[in-house]
Amino acid sequence: MVDSTTWVTSFVPNFPLPTPLLATASAEAGPMILAGVLLSLVVVYLASKLGGELCARIDLPPVLGELVGGVVVGVSALNLLVFPEGGADSSSSLIMSFLQATAGLTPEAAEGVFQAQSEVISVLAELGVIILLFEIGLESDLKELIRVGPQAAVVAVIGVTIPFVAGTVGLIYLFNVPTVAAIFAGAALTATSIGITAKVLAEIQQLSSREGQIIIGAAVLDDVLGIVILAVVASLAKTGEIEVSNVIWLIVSAGVFLIGAILVGRLLSPLFVALVNKLKTRGQLLLSALIFAFALAYIAAAINLEAILGAFAAGLILAETEKRHELEEQVIPVADILVPVFFVSVGAKTDLNVLNPAVPANREGLIIASFLVVVAIIGKICAGVGAFGKEKVNRLAVGVGMIPRGEVGLVFAGVGAASGVLSESLDAAIIVMVIATTFLAPPFLRVAFQTGEKAKPETAPALDSAAGEAIALDASAPEKAAEAVQESSQN
Amino acid sequence: MVDSTTWVTSFVPNFPLPTPLLATASAEAGPMILAGVLLSLVVVYLASKLGGELCARIDLPPVLGELVGGVVVGVSALNLLVFPEGGADSSSSLIMSFLQATAGLTPEAAEGVFQAQSEVISVLAELGVIILLFEIGLESDLKELIRVGPQAAVVAVIGVTIPFVAGTVGLIYLFNVPTVAAIFAGAALTATSIGITAKVLAEIQQLSSREGQIIIGAAVLDDVLGIVILAVVASLAKTGEIEVSNVIWLIVSAGVFLIGAILVGRLLSPLFVALVNKLKTRGQLLLSALIFAFALAYIAAAINLEAILGAFAAGLILAETEKRHELEEQVIPVADILVPVFFVSVGAKTDLNVLNPAVPANREGLIIASFLVVVAIIGKICAGVGAFGKEKVNRLAVGVGMIPRGEVGLVFAGVGAASGVLSESLDAAIIVMVIATTFLAPPFLRVAFQTGEKAKPETAPALDSAAGEAIALDASAPEKAAEAVQESSQN
Repeated sequence: MVDSTTWVTSFVPNFPLPTPLLATASAEAGPMILAGVLLSLVVVYLASKLGGELCARIDLPPVLGELVGGVVVGVSALNLLVFPEGGADSSSSLIMSFLQATAGLTPEAAEGVFQAQSEVISVLAELGVIILLFEIGLESDLKELIRVGPQAAVVAVIGVTIPFVAGTVGLIYLFNVPTVAAIFAGAALTATSIGITAKVLAEIQQLSSREGQIIIGAAVLDDVLGIVILAVVASLAKTGEIEVSNVIWLIVSAGVFLIGAILVGRLLSPLFVALVNKLKTRGQLLLSALIFAFALAYIAAAINLEAILGAFAAGLILAETEKRHELEEQVIPVADILVPVFFVSVGAKTDLNVLNPAVPANREGLIIASFLVVVAIIGKICAGVGAFGKEKVNRLAVGVGMIPRGEVGLVFAGVGAASGVLSESLDAAIIVMVIATTFLAPPFLRVAFQTGEKAKPETAPALDSAAGEAIALDASAPEKAAEAVQESSQN
Repeated sequence: MVDSTTWVTSFVPNFPLPTPLLATASAEAGPMILAGVLLSLVVVYLASKLGGELCARIDLPPVLGELVGGVVVGVSALNLLVFPEGGADSSSSLIMSFLQATAGLTPEAAEGVFQAQSEVISVLAELGVIILLFEIGLESDLKELIRVGPQAAVVAVIGVTIPFVAGTVGLIYLFNVPTVAAIFAGAALTATSIGITAKVLAEIQQLSSREGQIIIGAAVLDDVLGIVILAVVASLAKTGEIEVSNVIWLIVSAGVFLIGAILVGRLLSPLFVALVNKLKTRGQLLLSALIFAFALAYIAAAINLEAILGAFAAGLILAETEKRHELEEQVIPVADILVPVFFVSVGAKTDLNVLNPAVPANREGLIIASFLVVVAIIGKICAGVGAFGKEKVNRLAVGVGMIPRGEVGLVFAGVGAASGVLSESLDAAIIVMVIATTFLAPPFLRVAFQTGEKAKPETAPALDSAAGEAIALDASAPEKAAEAVQESSQN
C-alpha cells in the first residue's frame, strides 16, 4: 500500500483525483485483488509442484525445484510473478495483463490492484517462512542435541565459524564488498538445511548411522546458531552500521529472547497442554499453537529481531510437549500451502540476468558466486574433521552432510534481499551458492558414505513423521454428544 | 490498497511527497505490515476460540461464537479489528496504536500500514470462504442427493422458495426496502447450514434416522441452490439492476458453469487421481486440489459469478474421487486457520450499534430483524410439510432441522456487506436472523424429535470424519528411498 503511494503521487500532484473515480476504483478493486491473488497462487503452486517433482525425478531435493520454478515464473523469465520492489509495475506483470484480458480489470485500477496483490503475496510468503521455521523448531530436539553432545557441537561451531569468517573476510578484502553486505553473505554461508540433510540421509538409509546422528545433531544446533546469526545480521542490516555495543545488545537480546522464551515456555507448556485438552472446538490444538507462535513472532519482531526467531522458539517449546506429533501433522498442510509461496517468491524475485556472463559487469557476480561455493563446501568439510571420537567416524561424510544450505540458506537470501543491503549480484551469488551446495551434496554424500549398514524403516526423518499416524481432530465429539443428550434431558 | 489512495490524495495535492520519504516509509512498511497482520491473526484466533469454546460449553454451534467474538473485537466494541470500508482509519485501530507504542511504527507510515494490513486480512478472509465452500463441496455428495431423492428435493425447493419469496416481497412492500437489497436479504433466508445441521443431528444421535437423512440430503441440495442464488444475487448487486435477460443469463451461466464443471470434472477426475498418484513430493494431493479449486474459483469470478461457486464445484468434483477422505483430512487444518478469519471479520465488520433501540432510527432494523426471523423459521417449517412418504415421517422435525442458517447465511451476509447493496441496518438484521435461527434450532430440534432410535457411532457427520482415519502424506517415501538406492548404485 505505501508502495502504491509512489504511483499515486506520480499522478496526483498535478491534478487531485476526483473522489468518485476513487470510489468506483476501490469498489471494483476488491474482487480484482482476490482474482489476482487466486491467479498468483495457482502460478506459485504450479511452479513449486512442477519444479519440485522434476527435482524429485532426478533425485534432487524438491525445495530446489520450487526455487528454480520461482525463477522461471519470475522476473528472470516469464514475468508472471513480479514484485514492485524489483521496480516492476502492473504493465510488466503478465497476471495483471491476464486480469485485464479475462476479468475486465480496468487500466486505471490495474496499478492499485497490482500493488495490493503483490503486498498480499509478499505477506503470505513471510507467513510461509514463519510457518517453516515453526515447523523446523517443532522437528528440532534440544534433548537430541544434548545426547549427541560435544561432537555435534564442535561440528556445528566449526561449520558456522569457518565459512562465516572466511566468507566475510574474503568478500571484504578480495571483492571490496561493503562490510554489512559481506557479513550478511558470510552469515548465509553458515546455514545447514536440516530438512534436506535429513531427507538425503533417509534416502541413502544412513540416518541411524553414527555419522547420520552427528550430522542431524549438528544441523539442529546449526539451525539455532544460524537463526541467531540471521537475527543479528538482519538487525545490523536495518541499522546499517556495526557498533560493538549494538552487536552485543543484539546477541544478548537474541540469546535472552530465545533462551528466555524456551525457559518460560517450558514452564508454561504444561498449562498449554492442559488448556488444549480442555478445548472442544475444531482446530483447538493448531490455533492455540499458532496464537502462541504468532505472539512470539510479533514480540521478536517488535524487539528488532526477526519474526521467524519467535516462530522457531515457539516450535522448540511445543516440540517438548506431548502434543508434538499431533501438532506436526496438523502443521504439515498449513506449511504445504504457505511455504511454497516463500520459496517461489524468493526465486521469482531473483534476477538471474545479473549472472549473464555476456555482460561484463556481471562477471563479478559469477566470480563471487564461485568463491562462495568453494568457501561453503570447504568450510563444512573442515567442520567434519572436528568430529573426533573413540570409534572410527567417517569424518568426510559428516562434513559433506553439512554442505546443503537449502531452505535455511534461502531464508538468509530472502531476508537479505528484503533488507536491501545485498547488491543484486551478491544476492544472486548467494542463491547460486545455495543451489550449488544443495545440488552437489546428495551425490557427494553417496560417494562419501561407504555402502553398508541399512537403517530400519522406523528411522524415517522427522519430515516424514506425518506418515502412519492417526489424527483425532475431533476426538471430543463423543463427550459432546453425551453432554448434548444430558442437557437435552434437563431441558 | 486503492483505498489508501484516498488517504494519500487527501495529503498530496497540496504538496508532492518527496520520494525519499516514500522510500523510507515503504522500507519500514514491510516489517510493520507483517507485524500488524501477525497481531490481527492473534486477535482473530483468540476471538474465534474464546467465542467458539464459550458456545460449545453452552451447547451452541461454535461458529456462532466465532461471529460473536468478531463482533466483540470489531467496530461494535473493542475496535481491535476495524476495516477502512467501515470508514475507519489507523487512528481508530487499536492494533495500529499498539504497533506505534510497541514496535516503533511512525505516525506517517501508520495509515499506509493500516490500509495494507486490512487488505491482507480481507483477502485472507475471502480465501477463508473459498476454502470453507471447497470443504462443504467435499463433504457434499451428489449420490446421496439422488438416493434420498424426491423427498429431500421437495423439502429443499420449498425451503428455498417460501423464505425467498416471502422475505423479498415482505421487505419490499412492508418495509420499502430497495428491490436488489430485498432480493439479497431474501436470498440469505434460503440458506441451510449443512455443517450445523449435521452437527446438531449427530449430537442428538438422529443422523441415521429417516428424518435425519432427509434433512442432510435437503441441506446438501440447499447448499447448491443457495450458492447458485448467491452467485445470481451477488452479480445482480454488482450490476445494480434487474434485467430479466440478465437474470436468465446469470442463472444459465451459473447452471452451465456448475453442471459443466461437474461433468467435465468427473471426466477429468480420474486423470487428477492418476496424476496425484504419480507425484512424489510433499503436499502433492493438497496443492493439486487447490490449484484445481483456485483455478475454478478464478473462472467463476471472471465470468461474474462468485469465486466461492468455483471452489464449491471443485469440492463436489473431488468428493467423487477416491482421494476424498485423504483430501478432507488435509483441508481441515487449512480451513481451521483461514475460515475463522472470515467469520471473525464478518462479525468485526458488523456494527451492531445500528440495532441499539435507544436510537429511534435503529428500531426499523430491529423490526426488520424480527420479521426476517419469523419468515426464516416459518418458511423452513413449511418445507418440512413437503416431506411426504409411505411411512410416517416426523415432518416438524424435518422442517426444524432446516432452520439453522449458520455459516452459509453468514456467507450471504458477508458477500452482501462487501457488495455494498445492503444498508447497515439490513445487513445487521440478516446477521441477527442468522444468529437467531442458529441459536434456536438446537433446542427446537430436541423438542421436535421424540427420543427414540439411537444412531450407530459410524454414522458420525462428515464434519467429524477426520477422526479415526490415518493420513499417509508421504506414503511414497519408501519408494523414494528405494529409487535413491537404485540410482545411487547406478551412479
